[in-house]
Amino acid sequence: MTRVAVAGAAGYIGGELLRLLLGHPEVEVVGAVSSRFPGKRVDGVHPNLRSVTDLTFCSADEVGECDAVFLALPHRVAMTQIDHWTQRSKLVFDLTGDFRLDDTEVFRRYYGEEHRAAHLLGDFVPGIPELHRDRLRTADLISVPGCMAMAGVLALYPLVVRDLIDLEQGAQFDARTGSSGSGATAGPANLHAERSGSMRVFAPTGHRHEAEISRHLGLSAAMTATGVEAVRGIQTICHATLRPGVDKQTVRRAFREQYSEEPFVRVVAHQRGTFRYPDPKILLGSNYCDVGYAVDEDSGRLTTIAALDNLVKGGAGNALQCLNIRMGRPENLGLTFPGLHPL
Amino acid sequence: MTRVAVAGAAGYIGGELLRLLLGHPEVEVVGAVSSRFPGKRVDGVHPNLRSVTDLTFCSADEVGECDAVFLALPHRVAMTQIDHWTQRSKLVFDLTGDFRLDDTEVFRRYYGEEHRAAHLLGDFVPGIPELHRDRLRTADLISVPGCMAMAGVLALYPLVVRDLIDLEQGAQFDARTGSSGSGATAGPANLHAERSGSMRVFAPTGHRHEAEISRHLGLSAAMTATGVEAVRGIQTICHATLRPGVDKQTVRRAFREQYSEEPFVRVVAHQRGTFRYPDPKILLGSNYCDVGYAVDEDSGRLTTIAALDNLVKGGAGNALQCLNIRMGRPENLGLTFPGLHPL
Amino acid sequence: MTRVAVAGAAGYIGGELLRLLLGHPEVEVVGAVSSRFPGKRVDGVHPNLRSVTDLTFCSADEVGECDAVFLALPHRVAMTQIDHWTQRSKLVFDLTGDFRLDDTEVFRRYYGEEHRAAHLLGDFVPGIPELHRDRLRTADLISVPGCMAMAGVLALYPLVVRDLIDLEQGAQFDARTGSSGSGATAGPANLHAERSGSMRVFAPTGHRHEAEISRHLGLSAAMTATGVEAVRGIQTICHATLRPGVDKQTVRRAFREQYSEEPFVRVVAHQRGTFRYPDPKILLGSNYCDVGYAVDEDSGRLTTIAALDNLVKGGAGNALQCLNIRMGRPENLGLTFPGLHPL
Amino acid sequence: MTRVAVAGAAGYIGGELLRLLLGHPEVEVVGAVSSRFPGKRVDGVHPNLRSVTDLTFCSADEVGECDAVFLALPHRVAMTQIDHWTQRSKLVFDLTGDFRLDDTEVFRRYYGEEHRAAHLLGDFVPGIPELHRDRLRTADLISVPGCMAMAGVLALYPLVVRDLIDLEQGAQFDARTGSSGSGATAGPANLHAERSGSMRVFAPTGHRHEAEISRHLGLSAAMTATGVEAVRGIQTICHATLRPGVDKQTVRRAFREQYSEEPFVRVVAHQRGTFRYPDPKILLGSNYCDVGYAVDEDSGRLTTIAALDNLVKGGAGNALQCLNIRMGRPENLGLTFPGLHPL
Repeated sequence: MTRVAVAGAAGYIGGELLRLLLGHPEVEVVGAVSSRFPGKRVDGVHPNLRSVTDLTFCSADEVGECDAVFLALPHRVAMTQIDHWTQRSKLVFDLTGDFRLDDTEVFRRYYGEEHRAAHLLGDFVPGIPELHRDRLRTADLISVPGCMAMAGVLALYPLVVRDLIDLEQGAQFDARTGSSGSGATAGPANLHAERSGSMRVFAPTGHRHEAEISRHLGLSAAMTATGVEAVRGIQTICHATLRPGVDKQTVRRAFREQYSEEPFVRVVAHQRGTFRYPDPKILLGSNYCDVGYAVDEDSGRLTTIAALDNLVKGGAGNALQCLNIRMGRPENLGLTFPGLHPL
Repeated sequence: MTRVAVAGAAGYIGGELLRLLLGHPEVEVVGAVSSRFPGKRVDGVHPNLRSVTDLTFCSADEVGECDAVFLALPHRVAMTQIDHWTQRSKLVFDLTGDFRLDDTEVFRRYYGEEHRAAHLLGDFVPGIPELHRDRLRTADLISVPGCMAMAGVLALYPLVVRDLIDLEQGAQFDARTGSSGSGATAGPANLHAERSGSMRVFAPTGHRHEAEISRHLGLSAAMTATGVEAVRGIQTICHATLRPGVDKQTVRRAFREQYSEEPFVRVVAHQRGTFRYPDPKILLGSNYCDVGYAVDEDSGRLTTIAALDNLVKGGAGNALQCLNIRMGRPENLGLTFPGLHPL
Repeated sequence: MTRVAVAGAAGYIGGELLRLLLGHPEVEVVGAVSSRFPGKRVDGVHPNLRSVTDLTFCSADEVGECDAVFLALPHRVAMTQIDHWTQRSKLVFDLTGDFRLDDTEVFRRYYGEEHRAAHLLGDFVPGIPELHRDRLRTADLISVPGCMAMAGVLALYPLVVRDLIDLEQGAQFDARTGSSGSGATAGPANLHAERSGSMRVFAPTGHRHEAEISRHLGLSAAMTATGVEAVRGIQTICHATLRPGVDKQTVRRAFREQYSEEPFVRVVAHQRGTFRYPDPKILLGSNYCDVGYAVDEDSGRLTTIAALDNLVKGGAGNALQCLNIRMGRPENLGLTFPGLHPL
Repeated sequence: MTRVAVAGAAGYIGGELLRLLLGHPEVEVVGAVSSRFPGKRVDGVHPNLRSVTDLTFCSADEVGECDAVFLALPHRVAMTQIDHWTQRSKLVFDLTGDFRLDDTEVFRRYYGEEHRAAHLLGDFVPGIPELHRDRLRTADLISVPGCMAMAGVLALYPLVVRDLIDLEQGAQFDARTGSSGSGATAGPANLHAERSGSMRVFAPTGHRHEAEISRHLGLSAAMTATGVEAVRGIQTICHATLRPGVDKQTVRRAFREQYSEEPFVRVVAHQRGTFRYPDPKILLGSNYCDVGYAVDEDSGRLTTIAALDNLVKGGAGNALQCLNIRMGRPENLGLTFPGLHPL
């Protein structure tokens, strides 16, 4: 039994962590920390957990020693609290942006401030099982990637690692996201009447997840992020240029080979069918990231597509997958929910 | 291990049955029958089952003997095929409307035709664990109720069984439903552009589920059914008149007592909170039916509210709960998914 | 040219008033009052008015004498500011709840406080052209009804005025509404992630619009109000009992006769068709209220249905219709937008 | 008075044409042609036109001579019927894809068949007022562009015409669209339950509108088209590379200069605000195309954004604007509806 605490447990990622951790057969939740709602019942904030738990939120100081802690805090808060948490738990999973970049200069450019725990940046292993599984088996500090970064990286990694795309030309990412990514404390711009049905370009350039993609793929990523009508769900389209001579078969083989053994990555690129490319609609609540591709052989242009649930494979579920790896358990333990259709 | 077949497996209820049955630890799916897609992969129709199953659809004739069969067929088809299925399986769960009424005259009025297997009507036990748990332990023919009927019955039953409402005045039900209730073969009126954002009164009077409610509650139910913007989810509001002297405390006690031991009915009637009354939004994918109430003591008017996922507690999940009861297993086996928030 | 001011111009009703008044050929907007955004451009808050107007918001004190003022203020504010506005304008259209009831005791019960301008209650004429057209031709103080009240009243009035329903039994109203009814300053419960896809019973009993319906129809109304997935749009279902002997034809005739000359009420009760009953989906942006009915002759139960856009016929458009009547102009001047389909 | 007919009047574009033409003060609709519904009332198919018109659909043969005809037919049908219509009307507005390309080879590649009226391709003037206003003043055959093409062209044209972008690198377009683009006769993949909430990449490469963009901009366009949750509305994101030395100010000036006099193109690129970039949410029903831009000066990458209502500026409204130009009327006659907010 792994005894875990969640900091930032009243947020959307925090709630999803609780849902998954409470349902995990070998995990015990010993602390759900919320600075906003200490003493309040957890199911008063996360109504889907009614009858699942009688837990109440506690303060950070009330959490004693535990085996693992998950930081689902606002950006900037994690790096100020990191000492507090490493003192209580050998194993820390950070789900904020604070430890996702390994270069303080890039951090400053994308986050607009100095890093406050720069000495730890090198110690965090990226929580991307598909790229860093071996390191995750022994890592104590794990930084779970941003939701759009996760999708973007998985969408292009099989080609980058095989040197199939023209890195000179960089890659353009179009990310679409639901409103839950703005969190439970979002402001008036996220009122239902304002957000419903919108296609809101909230970051035409310079989104923070762009820096993560560039880091992990070793190329210059340019990302546009748009909020579309959805609560959960991320879809990332990637435009890149294939190296001369790379054809559709090669691309196909790269994806198949790369992900054939992955428990949570499915290659979806069919000739026909309503869901022939990755669509988050069928992934909500699940830990899958579906990836697909299309090639225009005349022009050498490549389009890849990735979809996931931003709160699961783009956050809480991915963190739990990392915990499973770290503890030597089956990766899909507590993560077998397949998604719903129709929904 | 219970060996089961699903007839009508390509529909929405059929797909949900497959999702739940494939995830059930003591069930083996031996047949997924579809007259439309024989030979086709199941996950080609139900994309959420990709990587979950390699099953293909088969024809009704290809199904051999099995322990239980679930009929998720179009209305009218079940009563014509019932002999076929009882010959293959001792245990039959019918999820159509064909065996939900026990009075052929009422059947004729609501379905507009003669019943073709009237001799069996008396043999079917209603698949409502909350009313008929003991009978379900030994029943071989089980008729799972309509989704709106299930919600309507559970919303008023605690008061009816305690004789707290004025039966003379009947009860008025307002049911709202998502589009999945129209099924996977719905027509052009259910195109996204036509159905999206609508509040479509498709049955101002005389909906078939009304007859079920009247039957189970022993009163005159008048139901209006409206399609609202949702894919899954049912909410039923019930208006009734309390007997003189019945106050809010009595109503509260009735609900608490009735459902305190029920694994899948929660009483939700809080003083405050965004989700203080039953809302299907937090129930999707789960087998819960949430019920709540409000009393206007001045006028003696009662309002009760029930919410559920029409494909789960309003169909496939409820059927599986009945199977668990019938097989003497824990009722929640394979049904522990708690729902998602936000979604 | 009528010179008008709008108080509360930064809200959703205020914005809709501006859209309609700016597009009206015989109206000049001389003041758009906002206490939150004085000096800010109107189209910074109402982006649909970009390139339509260069107006900026002003404070209440900056408004000089004008011909008519529209109060789209928060509830309770109108009655404290009423003297301010009657000094500036002979003609006042109040769109808040403050002057909708004529009984201070009923006001206290539904609004939970004392009325602060009770002496004026009798001077306000209800802004319901369909009931009070003649009085509106000369009224100086006009109280525009609540959106759900407007729908509820129009849905039942033809039968009440002809004494066709059993008043003893009262009438039950089930109102469904979009999120814009909560206004531009709604709280976290109305965040997109919380409100999207919900069926939220926010007033199972005792909604304020219930009191208006009871007043105008002279019966005991019991209303349940539910937020459903929509930004704009109201639908109200009404359940009542017909007097003995009243058949469907009589009901049909009552509706036809009552509304045949009304420019903005359409009777929609067809035998078939996707939109055979009133649905707000096709009314958004228009000033129509569609009404329909269904009769269960066996039981004598009546169901009526009304739909409208809460910001137009349920607010700003209806107010403008009243202004047109008051100024002796064609009622539909500036109100001819027919609605969109599909939307 | 211009006497006009609409062929394909029962479709979504046809319905929008009827709404706009019936509301136009100098147009008379003399024929609404539908091969599916001859003799049926127009408002039976387009319920938003109830009380607006008593028109019934007719067959193509019943249309006599008229001043202008609008072809809102399925692709491929227009080119087979073109002779029929040019015999009845000097002025033909084609809203299909049949006459949008001027190169039969490109047509074959994108449409997969031979053109059947290739001799006319050169006679059609593109219905893009912002590029071809002068030619449209005298054109008799006008081909209204595809909705995503319209957005894509307007989003990049100011930069292309000033030679500010690197044509060698081409441009990548990411188009998102609502479900109405699939038309009133869409198949089961567009059922509400299947389409709702989806992010469906239906054309990762090779969408037909891509060919139009390439034609009008004179560069190699690569477009990905995705259906997102919306009924109406198009948003197109464009990624391109600026020529060395082109900075943000130059881009800003290009847009301002290009569109300052355009009645239906607004430049939307603000520092802050919920709607600081183009969003179709506030454009529905209006004839505006909003365009915006963002520049990453470090990398020289340019992102432009365009939004419009696919049935209005992306179809019927744009066609009517072309008619106004052709007839020498004010361009915005009958097109002044500003859009709704919130919606």
